[in-house]
Amino acid sequence: MNLLHIAHEEPSARLWSDRFIEQLTSLGDLHITENGGQLSEEALLERMRSADVLLTGWGSVAVPPALAREPGAVRYICHMTGTMRATVPLEVIEAGVPVTNWGDAPANQVAEGAMALLLGTLKDLHHHVVTKREGGWGIDVHRNGGSLRGLRVGVYGCGAVGRRFIEMLRPFRAEVLVFDPYEVALPEGCRRAETLEELFGSCSAVAIHAALTAETRRSVTAELLALLPDHGVLVNTARGDILDQEALFAELEAGRLRAGLDVLAGSDSLPRDHPARRWENLILTSHQVEWGWPDDYEPTSELLPLHEVCLANLRRFAAGEQLLHRMDRERYERST
Amino acid sequence: MNLLHIAHEEPSARLWSDRFIEQLTSLGDLHITENGGQLSEEALLERMRSADVLLTGWGSVAVPPALAREPGAVRYICHMTGTMRATVPLEVIEAGVPVTNWGDAPANQVAEGAMALLLGTLKDLHHHVVTKREGGWGIDVHRNGGSLRGLRVGVYGCGAVGRRFIEMLRPFRAEVLVFDPYEVALPEGCRRAETLEELFGSCSAVAIHAALTAETRRSVTAELLALLPDHGVLVNTARGDILDQEALFAELEAGRLRAGLDVLAGSDSLPRDHPARRWENLILTSHQVEWGWPDDYEPTSELLPLHEVCLANLRRFAAGEQLLHRMDRERYERST
Repeated sequence: MNLLHIAHEEPSARLWSDRFIEQLTSLGDLHITENGGQLSEEALLERMRSADVLLTGWGSVAVPPALAREPGAVRYICHMTGTMRATVPLEVIEAGVPVTNWGDAPANQVAEGAMALLLGTLKDLHHHVVTKREGGWGIDVHRNGGSLRGLRVGVYGCGAVGRRFIEMLRPFRAEVLVFDPYEVALPEGCRRAETLEELFGSCSAVAIHAALTAETRRSVTAELLALLPDHGVLVNTARGDILDQEALFAELEAGRLRAGLDVLAGSDSLPRDHPARRWENLILTSHQVEWGWPDDYEPTSELLPLHEVCLANLRRFAAGEQLLHRMDRERYERST
Repeated sequence: MNLLHIAHEEPSARLWSDRFIEQLTSLGDLHITENGGQLSEEALLERMRSADVLLTGWGSVAVPPALAREPGAVRYICHMTGTMRATVPLEVIEAGVPVTNWGDAPANQVAEGAMALLLGTLKDLHHHVVTKREGGWGIDVHRNGGSLRGLRVGVYGCGAVGRRFIEMLRPFRAEVLVFDPYEVALPEGCRRAETLEELFGSCSAVAIHAALTAETRRSVTAELLALLPDHGVLVNTARGDILDQEALFAELEAGRLRAGLDVLAGSDSLPRDHPARRWENLILTSHQVEWGWPDDYEPTSELLPLHEVCLANLRRFAAGEQLLHRMDRERYERST
């Protein structure tokens, strides 16, 4: 089988580890093209149509929609990462070319990042850092602080990430409430909130683990945020546009709530001089809190979860078996 | 039964909640004396000798050693918090007056604080905070970062705190190694390190949960720290003097290790202009990361664990039953 990756410039170092390339090479004929961003659409299409499988992901060129009409040899597009809106057009999926993504591969890392933000915000780490840097020492812990023990923690969205998060939260002995209109069975020991109003009205901390869809967009409104108690905590490692960011920022600026935000509305950034950068009740992690793999420490022979999903799917494809995490219109639109 | 607390100045607000006072009043005749620091030793002794039970803890005056020779009515000293070296002299214990402390009441909070520091350090939260405050955004996650998944985490000391920490760590799927010369049975799923050399030589992160004793004092040496891998993490929520702080600071200043320190050598503080305050690979929490009770958010009718231990012991004392967490010389010396 012919495997092709066309990088826009250089192939992503995070994605293309030696160990991964070695495994791919054992499965097929691997071609990696650099600087694909400089090719014309026709040249791109010609190269793509010669491969059995396109490997896309971080750093890929976009697949031209014209591939849908005339896919050539292409019988599978294995998107190695999450969102693919900028890379694989829906037309290709609707034309019947099988397309998959990493499914729940990042769930562990995102849930771990959410736990780091929840604990970091609850323990006022931004305030600790600033106090010490500026020559102070003790902080006023009567005002803020907090413990997960007995705390009511709301989880908005109970997919793969939400479930891992709840698993990690369990030994801290919080009371967990879950709002998820899609899920029937909740993890053991959780209570269901029937509405977002119930979730925000009952909890002292809320973690967002929902996908960004037309329904969830800006679903965390000023009214919901107002239901959280003083010094309540909001953690978002999902998508910034799920909440009304101006409303949250107003609560943070007033010192009423605390937040740990890995993601922000729009382009996931803030102007250089935005005052929110210095609010001590806010921890910002620039969509990176979920990064960091075990092998940052010691290079091992392990593959990352996203590599495992990709390799498993290529083996399934080669054997004519059903693919994991195959996209349709609904999943495509929810994969943000 | 006559219950007496003599505060040095004002009674500690953290200790003397309304709910606790209400419960104590239902058990006996409670007297709280303010500004005991202004009394002469003779006046203190006279007051103390009139009580059946002395309640000591944060904010107490010290019990004069002379009470050992002539305890008067005192038949029990209920020390409501942890270390008592500055408050209850060993002579009183050796004279046979029963003395107890909070036992494992703070274990949950200390373990939770250690988890906050472990995740905060691993996710480089100090560096994130500074980067954002100074107008930057993304950070170089290839250099540091990290995930607990598959990470080898060493636990130095497997008492009540170490066990809670291991419980909290479990769903993150780290590999846990434990060094504790006193403990026979380890929690499920952990591996024993026979020496500190093995612990530091095998792990990428180490959390200290040992008591400060003659044996553990400065037991984490420069040689042990040198065994940790680059960007390895040290977390200390136990006592600062367990480690060679100058050696750790040298590693931190060089950027080789990362640390989350709730406690420091000596008086648990740093000069206002100490450069360590600004090292982005260090999070300092001024012995407060374990503070913050669930009722910081919503005052409830719950009592804190330390209150529960105190009340349970007073009930046992009244019923002539065996007391919990009774001190002898060895426990006294290990209770730091």
